[in-house]
Amino acid sequence: AVNEARLWDSLMEMAKIGATEKGGVCRIALTDLDREGRDLFVKWCKDAGCTISVDQMGNIFARRPGKNNDLPPVMTGSHLDSQPTGGKFDGVYGVLAGLEVVRTLNDFGIETDAPVEVAVWTNEEGSRFAPAMVASGVFAGVFDLDYGLSRADLDGKTMGEELKRIGYAGDLPVGGRPIGAYFEAHIEQGPILEAETKTIGVVTHAQGQRWYEVNVIGQDAHAGPTPMERRKDALVGAARMVGEVNRIGLAHKPFGRATVGLLNPIPNSRNVIPGKVFFTIDFRNPNEDALTAMDAEMRASLAKIAEEQGLEIEITQIWHSPVVTFHEKCVGAVRNATQRLGFSNMEIVSGAGHDACYINRVAPTGMIFIPCEDGISHNEIENAAPADCAAGCNVLLHAMVEAATA
Amino acid sequence: AVNEARLWDSLMEMAKIGATEKGGVCRIALTDLDREGRDLFVKWCKDAGCTISVDQMGNIFARRPGKNNDLPPVMTGSHLDSQPTGGKFDGVYGVLAGLEVVRTLNDFGIETDAPVEVAVWTNEEGSRFAPAMVASGVFAGVFDLDYGLSRADLDGKTMGEELKRIGYAGDLPVGGRPIGAYFEAHIEQGPILEAETKTIGVVTHAQGQRWYEVNVIGQDAHAGPTPMERRKDALVGAARMVGEVNRIGLAHKPFGRATVGLLNPIPNSRNVIPGKVFFTIDFRNPNEDALTAMDAEMRASLAKIAEEQGLEIEITQIWHSPVVTFHEKCVGAVRNATQRLGFSNMEIVSGAGHDACYINRVAPTGMIFIPCEDGISHNEIENAAPADCAAGCNVLLHAMVEAATA
Ligand SMILES: NC(=O)NCCC(=O)O
Ligand SMILES: NC(=O)NCCC(=O)O
Repeated sequence: AVNEARLWDSLMEMAKIGATEKGGVCRIALTDLDREGRDLFVKWCKDAGCTISVDQMGNIFARRPGKNNDLPPVMTGSHLDSQPTGGKFDGVYGVLAGLEVVRTLNDFGIETDAPVEVAVWTNEEGSRFAPAMVASGVFAGVFDLDYGLSRADLDGKTMGEELKRIGYAGDLPVGGRPIGAYFEAHIEQGPILEAETKTIGVVTHAQGQRWYEVNVIGQDAHAGPTPMERRKDALVGAARMVGEVNRIGLAHKPFGRATVGLLNPIPNSRNVIPGKVFFTIDFRNPNEDALTAMDAEMRASLAKIAEEQGLEIEITQIWHSPVVTFHEKCVGAVRNATQRLGFSNMEIVSGAGHDACYINRVAPTGMIFIPCEDGISHNEIENAAPADCAAGCNVLLHAMVEAATA
Repeated sequence: AVNEARLWDSLMEMAKIGATEKGGVCRIALTDLDREGRDLFVKWCKDAGCTISVDQMGNIFARRPGKNNDLPPVMTGSHLDSQPTGGKFDGVYGVLAGLEVVRTLNDFGIETDAPVEVAVWTNEEGSRFAPAMVASGVFAGVFDLDYGLSRADLDGKTMGEELKRIGYAGDLPVGGRPIGAYFEAHIEQGPILEAETKTIGVVTHAQGQRWYEVNVIGQDAHAGPTPMERRKDALVGAARMVGEVNRIGLAHKPFGRATVGLLNPIPNSRNVIPGKVFFTIDFRNPNEDALTAMDAEMRASLAKIAEEQGLEIEITQIWHSPVVTFHEKCVGAVRNATQRLGFSNMEIVSGAGHDACYINRVAPTGMIFIPCEDGISHNEIENAAPADCAAGCNVLLHAMVEAATA
């Protein structure tokens, strides 16, 4: 069994890097704080006897050798970057659960047949650089390297530049090598396990996602002398569109999700009628056809609103991550480990995207969910119980050892 | 008569400072570009034989002596700051029309009885530091000096700090000295003069304004796993409120105006349900009772939306500038000069606030409007005809000379 206190202490130690006043974490991808988090992880892994390599997307691999190092590694991992108002567990838990597996194997002097690796994937959140999971996507061959390195934040800084700046632009080619199996432990980030009072979610699928960027174009004008009927107020139009996106989510209950997370009026000045609004849409559905239907409904409604308001509109789908079915072998390994260890459990569909979704394309992959308080994530108050963190980590340990044993 | 080409050349020269790609100007209050604009104005005034003084709010006064320098000065002026996507005329025109009056008096060797002053008022736009017209407001005793100097931008920088930084924190006490009369020339910033094909607007009144800051508070949560019915999406609520503000403006046609110009979701990340939205409201009406009614309707509707959406709301009125009636003596002087010079004209109510609105409280004040293309202002494409600029400046010259002659 893993060391619950050690795992918890590591989580709390890492959470100091980018700690916010409200008890959360702001450790945005490829900032100085992301570098600090990476440095601490690398130090801990070296102390645990691992060798470190970094690829050209800044993905970090900490390797614990096995008996037969020609065997493909059994890998786990997740991400260290956070949302601007993120929590202490999203991503970090999966990384430090991996480290705890290594430390536990060391404690008991266990030598696996295959080597074990713990991965940190760059920019999983997709908050600073869209889309999400871009570096595991390059690893899995979904995106090419140039696409990955050229992703830019709203200030125009690219991932390539920022990786160099923080010293994590590695030499290793991205992907293209065999992995025996990949497991990722994560907080659920939703309310289901808590509501059902289950300790472990055996993740079978992940929802499909479509992300969009929308520009609504009207005309800047003075808020005082411009009569209401002469206005081309891009924000009035965008506001109706936000309502419509939400309506589409509600119309696809219980499984559809529709969110406008980012919205920037331009010029964003109190006494100027906004001439332009840039906003994003995040659509999800575990059913690919329903996701396609949401796309069509959204395009029709937004065009209609734009026409009615005398505005122009440009809608660009910037990302499509189809519904994922995890690998039966790994889902089975998670289920077996959970049952063997006697944890209450249920099958669950991931509402969030995870690096595991992309790694599943190049290696047999499975995921382990643990509950989080009130189902709240992407929030500074995100919380998880030490015992649940240890439970998920024990399942991870057992699933990995099984997979790493010939 | 004034020199049309010289006035136009000065406008175009000043427009180079902060020039934008689309032909507009971005010269935001108390930035380095604002300093450059001020420096150029000061140089031009010194070349025209004026003495310069600067008060503690950074207001600049360029003085051309009269025969009797114990007489209170006849003053004109406006502002050099712009909106983020502003034009070449808003404010600048009134300042450079004042300079052109001085230059013309020099050309013809005219000595007025009273001294003539050209003022540049700090932060008229209210875009970086709210409210608008804050420095003329301190001059007129509407706000105290501490209030003025402590106005902060969204990054927390105060006007006091920024005035020091750009070297325009003067020694002169703000206000408290007699002014014989104040005239301000400005583009209309609305469509009326153009629609009525009049060259000069004799401004009789200015609309009342109320500005608000609104915080809508919900709960950050993950855009993927959070079911639609569990969300407290502050942006969905704020979007309904934007629609409601617009509806109130439309309900108060033809005179009411209602604008949400600035809106910031927090954390503003693509895959986070926004837990908070900060936005502003700008309400205007030439009828004070109607403005009060708009206030009441808005408070009731926004509270209702917040309740329906399960959100908290805080509404703060940060500014109230009541309806202004300009001084009969100065309105008459503008009307007389316009008629004497034979320009087509009409009486008009200002839709925008102007420094003249506050100076009217401490000195007899009048305003002169000229048309602007398509009624468009607070936009980079803002435009005015050279002949109209000269016409307004000639009216200003005649009104000022009349007022400065005993
Ligand atoms: N796990 C997680 O929060 N991933 C971010 C990408 C997403 O929004 O699904
Ligand atoms: N003239 C002008 O644009 N003033 C800014 C203040 C306002 O919004 O009325």
